Amino acid sequence: MENKTLIFGHKNPDTDSICSSLVMEKFDRNLGFEVEAVRLGDVNKETAYVLNYLGIEAPRMIASVEEGQAVVLVDHNEFSQSVDGIEKAKIETVVDHHRIANFQTAEPLYYRAEPVGCTSTILYKKFKEENMTIEKKEAVLMLSAIVSDTLLFKSPTCTKEDKIACEELAKIAEIDVNTYGLDMLKAGTDLSDFTPDGLINIDSKEFANGDFKFQVAQVNTACIEDVLKDKTEIENAIQNFINSNGLNLFVFLITDIINSNSQCIVLGNNTEAFEKAFNTKLEDNMAFLEGIVSRKKQVAPVILNNI
Amino acid sequence: MENKTLIFGHKNPDTDSICSSLVMEKFDRNLGFEVEAVRLGDVNKETAYVLNYLGIEAPRMIASVEEGQAVVLVDHNEFSQSVDGIEKAKIETVVDHHRIANFQTAEPLYYRAEPVGCTSTILYKKFKEENMTIEKKEAVLMLSAIVSDTLLFKSPTCTKEDKIACEELAKIAEIDVNTYGLDMLKAGTDLSDFTPDGLINIDSKEFANGDFKFQVAQVNTACIEDVLKDKTEIENAIQNFINSNGLNLFVFLITDIINSNSQCIVLGNNTEAFEKAFNTKLEDNMAFLEGIVSRKKQVAPVILNNI
Repeated sequence: MENKTLIFGHKNPDTDSICSSLVMEKFDRNLGFEVEAVRLGDVNKETAYVLNYLGIEAPRMIASVEEGQAVVLVDHNEFSQSVDGIEKAKIETVVDHHRIANFQTAEPLYYRAEPVGCTSTILYKKFKEENMTIEKKEAVLMLSAIVSDTLLFKSPTCTKEDKIACEELAKIAEIDVNTYGLDMLKAGTDLSDFTPDGLINIDSKEFANGDFKFQVAQVNTACIEDVLKDKTEIENAIQNFINSNGLNLFVFLITDIINSNSQCIVLGNNTEAFEKAFNTKLEDNMAFLEGIVSRKKQVAPVILNNI
Repeated sequence: MENKTLIFGHKNPDTDSICSSLVMEKFDRNLGFEVEAVRLGDVNKETAYVLNYLGIEAPRMIASVEEGQAVVLVDHNEFSQSVDGIEKAKIETVVDHHRIANFQTAEPLYYRAEPVGCTSTILYKKFKEENMTIEKKEAVLMLSAIVSDTLLFKSPTCTKEDKIACEELAKIAEIDVNTYGLDMLKAGTDLSDFTPDGLINIDSKEFANGDFKFQVAQVNTACIEDVLKDKTEIENAIQNFINSNGLNLFVFLITDIINSNSQCIVLGNNTEAFEKAFNTKLEDNMAFLEGIVSRKKQVAPVILNNI
């Protein structure tokens, strides 16, 4: 077992999961705790842009934790999205902005959740509450996480608090948020290196309600048609994933970050749950959802309410 | 459905559940929210002492909430300890100091938990973080909750933060904590009015791990022998409760608040879980647990780890 408390975001880490782990590491070290930020999967291209901008390395990758390992979860709480072995870990702290589900502890813990657009917005508030100075590096990390999660403030998950935090952080980081943010988001839309299997795993989360298990994967793009060139191969990859994981439903969101819409590829034995949720009919396994960009706010809960 | 957001603690409310509901009501009203503190059961004698000291009424009692009702939970999160209908309520906020379990939401929410001795200690910190003035009434309420939950700082659940908060609150309340606190705790040990059925319901909580359901009830006393005079009647009441609620195990803690020990009456088809948890053998359905006063820290998790 590791001596230090391990801090990590969810599997298939996005920019918030990586950046908030690093910021939480700094926060806890400032308070004198022995902690280490780690990650549960490959760093995506958007996050790589941030780390490259700062000239820093990604946290070390881990696959599982041993029984009794002290951990801090950021940007997630559902065990199905967390590290293997989480059920037997000692969860000391959670900082998150998602619903709470499929989560439990045997002991009291620190849990800080707020319904804001990004975990880093909550971390920003925690720095303020502790009167802790925010340095440039952490400002860039938090700002990047907020831009990523809110799609430059366009997502319906974005709140006034996210915007205020980002404005303050931009001053410390000495960054023009719109220029930097768009470059960062565009770096994340370069999907050319990915196999179809890779594509559906870039940012993929499992949800469950009783026995019903479904996956919602998402990629950001500036051109939906580009992604759809490989539709058949993507469908094959999704079908294999469904078979391997015993899923009822798989929703693959191809999100146009310029126009804020999503094209969905939907497969599984229970696609009627998706059709009911969005009052739509799939054609060629696809549906176009206007104005839908947020898995957390606009997709997962709507499906959960219709199964 | 009620227009206002309803704030409440757990069923069989203790002093922390009632006082923290009232303090949270004040906190949220200060921020401009329409809220009302309510309660899920009778006020116990200890809490009555506090309300009487302040010359205020107990919050209104409710039995259930309708679908979609906006609610704030204080001092609990497990649905089995909450209001009837909680599964379909809109949980906006939780402020608590217990483990998280048997709890889930469909949407993101405010959740603030810390592993401190009392919910009111967290509320005290929230007032501080918001630079909100604490008035005398709320100071008495919070101080009373802390004294109650920590048994005047003697419980192993008591932390440095609880003590610091209580010291500060005592200044605002202009109260000598030891004198007031002991009087308050003693008021709570007057069990003379209670039938055996009433006795096992004064402060009683259900826990579950999978299919295994157990109840831990607790009374405080200055004299264990006094309570044991009615042992046979209490056992009958417990057995009826087990039968009505399909429980595997019922643990009744009679806690000596002067010497910090507990006599336990233990019944059910799975008393071996209790015996294993505490490495003891029941005699006449009883076991004496030295130094054990905290259900949350010393009893519930130990049983949960042994079923």
